[in-house]
Amino acid sequence: MKEKGLLIVLSGPSGVGKGTVRKAIFSEPDKSFEYSISMTTRLPREGEVDGVDYFFKTREEFEALIEQGKLLEHAEFVGNYYGTPVDYVRETIEAGKDIFLEIEVEGAKQVREKFPDGLFIFLAPPSLSELENRIVNRGTDTEEVIQRRMKVAKEEIELMSLYDYVVENDSVERACEKVNCIIVAEHCRRERVEARYKKMLEAE
Amino acid sequence: MKEKGLLIVLSGPSGVGKGTVRKAIFSEPDKSFEYSISMTTRLPREGEVDGVDYFFKTREEFEALIEQGKLLEHAEFVGNYYGTPVDYVRETIEAGKDIFLEIEVEGAKQVREKFPDGLFIFLAPPSLSELENRIVNRGTDTEEVIQRRMKVAKEEIELMSLYDYVVENDSVERACEKVNCIIVAEHCRRERVEARYKKMLEAE
Repeated sequence: MKEKGLLIVLSGPSGVGKGTVRKAIFSEPDKSFEYSISMTTRLPREGEVDGVDYFFKTREEFEALIEQGKLLEHAEFVGNYYGTPVDYVRETIEAGKDIFLEIEVEGAKQVREKFPDGLFIFLAPPSLSELENRIVNRGTDTEEVIQRRMKVAKEEIELMSLYDYVVENDSVERACEKVNCIIVAEHCRRERVEARYKKMLEAE
Repeated sequence: MKEKGLLIVLSGPSGVGKGTVRKAIFSEPDKSFEYSISMTTRLPREGEVDGVDYFFKTREEFEALIEQGKLLEHAEFVGNYYGTPVDYVRETIEAGKDIFLEIEVEGAKQVREKFPDGLFIFLAPPSLSELENRIVNRGTDTEEVIQRRMKVAKEEIELMSLYDYVVENDSVERACEKVNCIIVAEHCRRERVEARYKKMLEAE
């Protein structure tokens, strides 16, 4: 029987740089895991490509998919839906390959309930004030939106308790390195390897 | 109050290459952890230096140190004592630095009892037959010693359950990478980071 793949979830407060870190991780060659592209109703930002960065959907399309049970998780965030198509995730895991999700905190909570054995990584801002700077400097949001996001972020940091690991995004390079290390380490966890070695010992 | 350093233990069956992996890890620059030099009554192998590879002691000296409670762990293995001087380990941890031990399986068991929160890494042979090859090719032992070591190794593989991680030593380079990753990941564990972030949140 084939061993199932690992479900890897990268999440964290809005503005912390989840997308940047995820893109940097997947820009490296020879990834041992697949990326699960999210679905959203928000408008594409400059440079974002449908089917690469996100599957961009209308509100009506998104709600129909929710109805049909086609989303592993979904959440409404700052007025837009975000979600993960379930089929690709299940197929990849069943095929014995790891799958990598980069999703909002609310969605991660839902995935944790369905996949308690997943690997949950929380990307954290070096400080709340730096989070504020980042959001301010992004320059696409009003002060009201920013304040709302700050409030959400504070609540999200309290959600850290649902995660297995916390990676501070003090630099994209270091954050990538740490996420990659956590995935390597997870595959070395004793519980995971022990069964395989016991078989080897019996075969001797 | 200063946070305590982490106790990192690398162990595994005799002949698996613990010493080689440990040397390779410490040959890299900018290590964030200190090495705890072991003590032994066995004779130095070619190229081994007293105070670098081991502290080489006579049986009488070693037994006196056991009496004085100066060893964190010690074990007799294939007719020789091996042990870890306790003072340097305690001082390093108290100073907030991580310390790295490369010790025999019997000693690791004793350390686990004293430091249940340590990071215990089991270095495993790719297969028992490869372990046998390695021991044969080392060419310093008799067949009787080798067979005794094989038996010990089989028992030791069963000891894997005491460890947090298992790293297969299929290549020294990959094993080093994995050990380094496990240490990086351990520092990102949520329980460890959460407290620090909660303080940050309160300060906002």
